[in-house]
Amino acid sequence: MEEKRGLKNRGYSHSDVDERRKAVEEFTGTNLESISKYCFDSEEASKNIENMIGATQIPLGFAGPVLIRGDHAKGEFIIPLATTEGALLASISRGMSVINAGGGARVKVFQDGMTRAPVFRTDGIDHCMQVIEWIESNTGLLSSVVDTTTNHGKLSSVEYFPAGRNLFIRFTYATGDAMGMNMATIATEAICKEIEEHTGAVMVSVSGNMCSDKKAAAINMIKGRGKSVLAEVLIPKEAVESKLHATTESIVETNVRKNLVGSSLSVTMGANAHAANMIAALYIATGQDPAQVVSGSMTTTVCENINGDLYISVRMPTVEVGTVGGGTRLPTQREALDMIGCLGNDKAKKLAEIVAVTVLAGELSTISAQAAGHLGKAHKELGR
Amino acid sequence: MEEKRGLKNRGYSHSDVDERRKAVEEFTGTNLESISKYCFDSEEASKNIENMIGATQIPLGFAGPVLIRGDHAKGEFIIPLATTEGALLASISRGMSVINAGGGARVKVFQDGMTRAPVFRTDGIDHCMQVIEWIESNTGLLSSVVDTTTNHGKLSSVEYFPAGRNLFIRFTYATGDAMGMNMATIATEAICKEIEEHTGAVMVSVSGNMCSDKKAAAINMIKGRGKSVLAEVLIPKEAVESKLHATTESIVETNVRKNLVGSSLSVTMGANAHAANMIAALYIATGQDPAQVVSGSMTTTVCENINGDLYISVRMPTVEVGTVGGGTRLPTQREALDMIGCLGNDKAKKLAEIVAVTVLAGELSTISAQAAGHLGKAHKELGR
Amino acid sequence: MEEKRGLKNRGYSHSDVDERRKAVEEFTGTNLESISKYCFDSEEASKNIENMIGATQIPLGFAGPVLIRGDHAKGEFIIPLATTEGALLASISRGMSVINAGGGARVKVFQDGMTRAPVFRTDGIDHCMQVIEWIESNTGLLSSVVDTTTNHGKLSSVEYFPAGRNLFIRFTYATGDAMGMNMATIATEAICKEIEEHTGAVMVSVSGNMCSDKKAAAINMIKGRGKSVLAEVLIPKEAVESKLHATTESIVETNVRKNLVGSSLSVTMGANAHAANMIAALYIATGQDPAQVVSGSMTTTVCENINGDLYISVRMPTVEVGTVGGGTRLPTQREALDMIGCLGNDKAKKLAEIVAVTVLAGELSTISAQAAGHLGKAHKELGR
Amino acid sequence: MEEKRGLKNRGYSHSDVDERRKAVEEFTGTNLESISKYCFDSEEASKNIENMIGATQIPLGFAGPVLIRGDHAKGEFIIPLATTEGALLASISRGMSVINAGGGARVKVFQDGMTRAPVFRTDGIDHCMQVIEWIESNTGLLSSVVDTTTNHGKLSSVEYFPAGRNLFIRFTYATGDAMGMNMATIATEAICKEIEEHTGAVMVSVSGNMCSDKKAAAINMIKGRGKSVLAEVLIPKEAVESKLHATTESIVETNVRKNLVGSSLSVTMGANAHAANMIAALYIATGQDPAQVVSGSMTTTVCENINGDLYISVRMPTVEVGTVGGGTRLPTQREALDMIGCLGNDKAKKLAEIVAVTVLAGELSTISAQAAGHLGKAHKELGR
Repeated sequence: MEEKRGLKNRGYSHSDVDERRKAVEEFTGTNLESISKYCFDSEEASKNIENMIGATQIPLGFAGPVLIRGDHAKGEFIIPLATTEGALLASISRGMSVINAGGGARVKVFQDGMTRAPVFRTDGIDHCMQVIEWIESNTGLLSSVVDTTTNHGKLSSVEYFPAGRNLFIRFTYATGDAMGMNMATIATEAICKEIEEHTGAVMVSVSGNMCSDKKAAAINMIKGRGKSVLAEVLIPKEAVESKLHATTESIVETNVRKNLVGSSLSVTMGANAHAANMIAALYIATGQDPAQVVSGSMTTTVCENINGDLYISVRMPTVEVGTVGGGTRLPTQREALDMIGCLGNDKAKKLAEIVAVTVLAGELSTISAQAAGHLGKAHKELGR
Repeated sequence: MEEKRGLKNRGYSHSDVDERRKAVEEFTGTNLESISKYCFDSEEASKNIENMIGATQIPLGFAGPVLIRGDHAKGEFIIPLATTEGALLASISRGMSVINAGGGARVKVFQDGMTRAPVFRTDGIDHCMQVIEWIESNTGLLSSVVDTTTNHGKLSSVEYFPAGRNLFIRFTYATGDAMGMNMATIATEAICKEIEEHTGAVMVSVSGNMCSDKKAAAINMIKGRGKSVLAEVLIPKEAVESKLHATTESIVETNVRKNLVGSSLSVTMGANAHAANMIAALYIATGQDPAQVVSGSMTTTVCENINGDLYISVRMPTVEVGTVGGGTRLPTQREALDMIGCLGNDKAKKLAEIVAVTVLAGELSTISAQAAGHLGKAHKELGR
Repeated sequence: MEEKRGLKNRGYSHSDVDERRKAVEEFTGTNLESISKYCFDSEEASKNIENMIGATQIPLGFAGPVLIRGDHAKGEFIIPLATTEGALLASISRGMSVINAGGGARVKVFQDGMTRAPVFRTDGIDHCMQVIEWIESNTGLLSSVVDTTTNHGKLSSVEYFPAGRNLFIRFTYATGDAMGMNMATIATEAICKEIEEHTGAVMVSVSGNMCSDKKAAAINMIKGRGKSVLAEVLIPKEAVESKLHATTESIVETNVRKNLVGSSLSVTMGANAHAANMIAALYIATGQDPAQVVSGSMTTTVCENINGDLYISVRMPTVEVGTVGGGTRLPTQREALDMIGCLGNDKAKKLAEIVAVTVLAGELSTISAQAAGHLGKAHKELGR
Repeated sequence: MEEKRGLKNRGYSHSDVDERRKAVEEFTGTNLESISKYCFDSEEASKNIENMIGATQIPLGFAGPVLIRGDHAKGEFIIPLATTEGALLASISRGMSVINAGGGARVKVFQDGMTRAPVFRTDGIDHCMQVIEWIESNTGLLSSVVDTTTNHGKLSSVEYFPAGRNLFIRFTYATGDAMGMNMATIATEAICKEIEEHTGAVMVSVSGNMCSDKKAAAINMIKGRGKSVLAEVLIPKEAVESKLHATTESIVETNVRKNLVGSSLSVTMGANAHAANMIAALYIATGQDPAQVVSGSMTTTVCENINGDLYISVRMPTVEVGTVGGGTRLPTQREALDMIGCLGNDKAKKLAEIVAVTVLAGELSTISAQAAGHLGKAHKELGR
């Protein structure tokens, strides 16, 4: 009776949370004491979760310092990373120390835009073409409709993918410091209402999976989504040998056989060792959406031998991050963002740069470790 | 000076953590008070992280109860989910209530095995064939080598992918209740030492990306990795209309145009609405590896109209979960596992079943919401 | 001695061909009498082949007539198809007869452009950006360079894909009635010379596989290459039942389970039954490049039930055809082009429309046959 | 009137062909004189085509001789190639001459099996499992059912892909010297009848696109279809420089940047320069199915620098060829098969080996030409 009331409680106050958790404890016959120890204000989390019963605590550590030479991130950074995978932070830190030996990592956001792609049902080919024409003739109207839904988002481009009676339209938005998914969804719904009204096409879904969110989609590998970022560093031969205990030749060979040939034979989106590990740890620490690790994983890592020195780069076409909204409101996440100077406005690109350099460090370290043949040993000693 | 000492401190005690966090605060000029409030024993997290400075707290809520008819998970469950994405848990809960109206979800693990695939450098085609022959003639030896490295893992199959001087070998292991990646890595390294010794092939990397871990790889879509799971439910027409405010026809249409046609046109691994969301929330809550959300995202959702009722199923070929090791040792994560009866031994398949049903609920709810045209509205009210 | 001279003969006259063939007969100990019976002037084939010894003869038949309602192809057409696969032409013809029962097929070329994408080696990220900036500031110059290499081709767009020290640049050209690959290659080489000279970037290959020619590349599924074409038809319920011996429901179901779900699970580029069959037969008959069947195969077939009638459409993003140059110079190929009114200028889009309708017919027929369960029977009776 | 009769004529005699062609000439207002000049017996082509009106003639030339060190193809071969692409044969021949300088190419078929994968509709997960169990318990029965349909084919393995109410079953057959598609289709239909009868599952389509024929499907990249073949050669440094006018370093670099990195960024199945060209030319010359060039195109080319010498290999997982049946019955095609000693029985693997070496030669030549920067020049001189 009471239990049921607890489970059905929809409130956000501390006592609502307590009642709910107790109901869950009763229902499941478990003790949720650790879960009850959260440090944030449950009311403030009301935009982040429903049915809250407490918090999950994930160990937070750091990697670095690492020297970053970005357009936005400049100087030495200590990177907050939340993980439960032993050996990961030690490995990333090792990579960062080697990056420092190379004079720091260059990093650049070369493209930026959040997408939403509804699918419409039309009467067929000719109707598709009419809808496209109508939109092309009314971009001003659509932009102004977008402006009624958001102060920060701007419609930046429109692409069309007709397929019989299906018409997919991919809208791209500038979304400022927000990751921008919800902004894009709301703006797109407003646009779609106009399109429906003026063309008779029917919006079947505001997301037609050509956006595409939280899936490994080639369209995002190729066109990018969120921030598209490049990072690189040149490691002197001496540092490769003394710090990575490997040779430039062996690292380049490992990268070719594993990341390039192996990824091709297994038909993998992207070509990297474990980009998702770094992305997940940094996204969780800073309040990003951890499901967007999926798209981040489509990273391409390339190693080259330049006169004995090791050049390594990562290409990340789909870094979907923001410094306002979502999980960035929560206290531990805010502190982590603060650690890297990414609290507040005009920081999203800086954060994307930091993501890429962290991935670069992790790739460098792991590929080198595999080249040197002691990946398993590291896990045996530090973690597993 | 002191700061440097703090940053270089490698200890695991509470005071080591404090010293380190203070050094980070000094280095970055930030206050990390919330981060300092962790409820677990830092020494016990020593296998989960290095350079620990505290914890990230993620709001934890629940979805359900949901009725599950698995081979391992049987009965009503309340699912712990950690997220910062508003509207997600409400949506999953809605899906679960509809699943209940359909008499609960049937779910089954139809395959189980963790993989590691080293890449060897050989002298060429003939050498590749000799290596393959040697392995085929010595599987007993290799199995016994595996047994020296683990009490829980068993070598279950070996597959070969020669490509010129590259030889990729994909080893599959039964790994009991552990997710099994590290177990597989260590066992594979031991195997590789034998192979190197007897055949002269050189292991270039213990992971040659045909494993493939934490990447969206077709090889895992097709062959599976970890647990391969199916879940399904049949929702009566009345429940579709009264609870989902949509029709079976509109939901099936949305699934075809969005998840099937849209995913094909965008060249996506898998075909689903947002499987990664549910996986991420449940993985984080229960101490799984959040980077493995990537492979989980390769989910296929199919909807069918059966005499007006809605049949919906998910196929998840790559659910990489464990109930021992990794993040499952931590207190909030243990409590979450306990909530669903997945603490301890013989529970990994049960957990995989729960993952699939949670994904099923989230898919059902979101596709229905998109079919009903109010996805954006839900976000506007509850979250963003 | 003489044999060797024959094999080394590089001439194009009839007697050169004879001498060469005799040398091959001697070398291989075979009789090549049938191969010697070619009907075209070997001198005229000098731009199509080297080391010519005769001709391969492939049975040529027709399918149709089919009623086409294109922007360029209008009216009834009889389609020339060269094949050795029994049952194929009967099946396509059946599909065409059903298309006619639906009032003919609507078809449209919605995009047109041939691509070439060289890869450059740069010094790294900043250099990549400088090269991009230089190109963006000098598009006029590059267009005029293109004009020095071709009378028919025009540079229409430039896209950039930097990846560390790799810079891929995808150039798109309008190429008139030529398929345009060689035109694009030659123009791109001229452009690259300018880029190398002004920016210091080094062209590593004029094709960096982001073009991408004769491979199944998602970039072309998504962005298109050559002509991008849509075709559709609505078949009345009665015709479905009387002519296809199936039901609209069963055909739609077959298309969903096979072309959509099956293609997704097998991670296939495109979603169709056998588009490549029709493309190959028509390409060979009309002197197109048969290796470009590969990209054509990335076709998406969608079937819908509209009030009991069957709507079927194909989307072909990559139809690389021309009506001048290449194999279109040869007599049997010219006659085949003539049969469909595609000889001479301003005919390439018309040809692309005919390709799409032929694919539509073949898809319709085969999916229906599979739906009706007698695919194997057709092969048993008509084919081998 | 008469015209209509001609178009509707379904006969196979020479005069039937004449009547039909005349009807087409009238219908289209064209002259089909060249098409009328075919050298084979139209009755004998009755299993290859319907509605025959004549033949397409494609220039046939040769490349080679090339020294092959296969398990089946041994010695020097002159390769018949039908093409209309100028410069192609000269380029392949150049590659072969360089292969000879390396002592010939080693080549091996390492796997062989033709597949057919029907899709069944079941009642859901449990029914899928029952069907699988039934099949697993009745493989003997199914094998004997196969034997009633073919003298040459043998069922060699069965794989299952359940997905909700869809059950895909991939049957693999040994098919002797036939390419085996029709054999596999007919055998699978017989099997399916048994499955339907004993399990109540309904075969929706004998091909569920997990076979997958004539599409670029990752399942075939990974599991293979038809013959899976490796070829390799080591070219001495001197030959690289004197014959290819390039350096080993530049060729390896071109292969990495173009075939590996470029193919990864464009999300391509396989990683090669133009494998489809060689496959198409050889398939057409020898009566193979040209639509299967699609699957052949999923080739992986790897180049390595071994002490200054150039090692190059191709991996072709999906070479679908036969030496009996299909187009191999026709006279010019038979003569071409005879040229390479592939007429008659026990020759299919030999043919597959020859395919792979021809691809190897073409890859070697083109990648080298691109490395040397003169691809466009070759086309300008030799081609159109």
